[in-house]
Amino acid sequence: MPEQSPLDLAEGDLFGPHNLPYGVFSTADEPERRRVGVRIGGHVLDAGAAALTLGSPYAALLARPTLNPLLAAGRTAWRDVRRALTAWVTSPAHRADIEPLLHPVTAVTLHLPYEVADYVDFYASEHHATNVGRIFRPDGDALTPNWKHLPIGYHGRAGTVVVSGTDVVRPSGQRKAPTDPAPVFGPSVKLDIEAEVGFVVGTPSTHGTPVPLADYREHVFGLFLLNDWSARDIQAWEYVPLGPFLGKSFATSVSAWVTPLEALDAAHTAPPARDFPLLPYLDDSDEEEPGGYDIRIEVRINGEVVSAPPFATMYWTAAQQLAQMTVNGASLRTGDLFGSGTVSGPEVNQRGSLLELTWNGRDPIELATGKRTFLEDGDEVTMTAWAPGPHGTRVGLGEVTGRIVPASE
Amino acid sequence: MPEQSPLDLAEGDLFGPHNLPYGVFSTADEPERRRVGVRIGGHVLDAGAAALTLGSPYAALLARPTLNPLLAAGRTAWRDVRRALTAWVTSPAHRADIEPLLHPVTAVTLHLPYEVADYVDFYASEHHATNVGRIFRPDGDALTPNWKHLPIGYHGRAGTVVVSGTDVVRPSGQRKAPTDPAPVFGPSVKLDIEAEVGFVVGTPSTHGTPVPLADYREHVFGLFLLNDWSARDIQAWEYVPLGPFLGKSFATSVSAWVTPLEALDAAHTAPPARDFPLLPYLDDSDEEEPGGYDIRIEVRINGEVVSAPPFATMYWTAAQQLAQMTVNGASLRTGDLFGSGTVSGPEVNQRGSLLELTWNGRDPIELATGKRTFLEDGDEVTMTAWAPGPHGTRVGLGEVTGRIVPASE
Repeated sequence: MPEQSPLDLAEGDLFGPHNLPYGVFSTADEPERRRVGVRIGGHVLDAGAAALTLGSPYAALLARPTLNPLLAAGRTAWRDVRRALTAWVTSPAHRADIEPLLHPVTAVTLHLPYEVADYVDFYASEHHATNVGRIFRPDGDALTPNWKHLPIGYHGRAGTVVVSGTDVVRPSGQRKAPTDPAPVFGPSVKLDIEAEVGFVVGTPSTHGTPVPLADYREHVFGLFLLNDWSARDIQAWEYVPLGPFLGKSFATSVSAWVTPLEALDAAHTAPPARDFPLLPYLDDSDEEEPGGYDIRIEVRINGEVVSAPPFATMYWTAAQQLAQMTVNGASLRTGDLFGSGTVSGPEVNQRGSLLELTWNGRDPIELATGKRTFLEDGDEVTMTAWAPGPHGTRVGLGEVTGRIVPASE
Repeated sequence: MPEQSPLDLAEGDLFGPHNLPYGVFSTADEPERRRVGVRIGGHVLDAGAAALTLGSPYAALLARPTLNPLLAAGRTAWRDVRRALTAWVTSPAHRADIEPLLHPVTAVTLHLPYEVADYVDFYASEHHATNVGRIFRPDGDALTPNWKHLPIGYHGRAGTVVVSGTDVVRPSGQRKAPTDPAPVFGPSVKLDIEAEVGFVVGTPSTHGTPVPLADYREHVFGLFLLNDWSARDIQAWEYVPLGPFLGKSFATSVSAWVTPLEALDAAHTAPPARDFPLLPYLDDSDEEEPGGYDIRIEVRINGEVVSAPPFATMYWTAAQQLAQMTVNGASLRTGDLFGSGTVSGPEVNQRGSLLELTWNGRDPIELATGKRTFLEDGDEVTMTAWAPGPHGTRVGLGEVTGRIVPASE
């Protein structure tokens, strides 16, 4: 019996040829040589090597240490490269050339796949924003008056975006409980997660010129899972009046795999009905393609599922977030990231943060590894997701995982 | 009579050999060739060419299109390069080599001198924060409870930092006056300035490890004037609960010249007395070098001085801001910028924003070019500054200027 090819995938493989997410990898024998990889099943295709072997004109975009050259190449190139890759991994004629360029995903090191330019985080789930409002501002309206008129966002720290698998050091900082006479300093005691979907910009835009809703797919290359680690005690003390800063800036974990938007054509879904008419630059009621994505996320702590946030429930879409971010003329650069904000559905077991799941620690959750209000040292948080693909398939998003290590002395 | 050398400077020149700020320039005959320049009087020395001509080992750091390689080289290199430059522009032995490498500053194009990594803006003037609190939150305490316990900051947009001289397009966006039944969209009608001092990081830090106060000068290379353009109407509607976003992200102008911290050794001054004891990581009472700088800023609109903000009055120092920014383990990268926040002194004519100078438009100021509450299209805003230098000299900071052009259609 001949050995099975890594290209012969089981039916229903989340990483079949309908998916083909991009990453950057290196191998043990050449740890310094980072290059673009494309995931197929349980393997990584050395995409640049494949392009060279097959005489493809895309080698210049693929035999590189980051995705940025491909991101900057624009939508036509993205489509052409994807078409070529699909042919390489599906056509029997290419098998002999392609198989030697496949590495088991467990045998390679995966790196942050892009150089991050700016990082913006939004706040686009009505259920999440309502829960947070109730917890942090119990005496006011849960949603601020602006919430349903614009996607609220803020800039985060680009330099501390880390790839899935990177340990997260528990941050220290100031906090002040209402009962404390003065602020105290120490490791965060309310270390939390935020389950999000992130988007990466490929094509830049011109400073001074807004990007309309309809141009979303000209600029955004793909999406990925993102965990916006949050220290709730540090955040609560610092965030008035200028917003979150150190409570969020210590680490943001992203998946090693970027799923191109083209793989998600079957996953589009209409966002929830809007409660207020939107200003024209945000009004997506006439857009050809519904702006939401039916992405089903699962959040595990130490292997146990604690939540299943449904991305389809997000009030604001990625296209609206892009339009908002640029309506004042701010330019986009290749490598800009933006996060959706925490994804929380209407049900308790659909909440994307421990803040909400435990109602700020009031209602601990029970895990096999013990009771939890917030994260303990050693806890490992893993997010996975899938979305509908073509012809009844499922498109897997690459997981994002991270383990908490104790605060530095 | 021999022609005077550009190196023979008038007494009191703000850009004498005691200053030597760094920039990046190109010339009309080679517009694509950006290189490091050092300002001396009214001229720019092609620093990389000088290093090559004089056989200096620093050519590799100086013959480059940005300051980043020099920034990344670390404090010992910064000191050695400055010592070499000082010798080149002062020693008669080098005159014949150096003079041909000088370009009149008016004859070159000055570029953004560094690649910006992350950009953080602080809020460190007690007078400014008190004024803003009174204007925006008239029913509450002017300062939030955290203000005197930590330097409040937030991340801004790195991709829209522009060099002095770049036109600023009036941003459009949502605003909602209390009397508006719903938000309206249009060009900002409250376009403002913020006079600040910015700092640029040279030496990076390790993710997970805070930078203590005492290490400030190991990491920060230099400082410069910064104008944090602000659309007050957009900001007022968007900023609760996650802070300023589009009201600030359309443009931040920085001087073309970075003054190395070594040029400011005579400008150190003690910050104001602290009203509360500070947590150890912020407590600078035992630091050898006082953390403030005696920098005198002037703000002109269309050539007319409207304010003279004194940087010496800032409550929080740059070293404290750096310690705050990293105390949660967030890492620094070469090219990180941080702004001091608007500099406002106790007097009305020392306020660093029109928001304060006109009390949110209530008290217009009278200029030769007409009454102003906020900026009008065509207005040009220019900031200049100096600080005490060695032996009674003055160290000029490079100006930052920008002109408002009408909103795009």
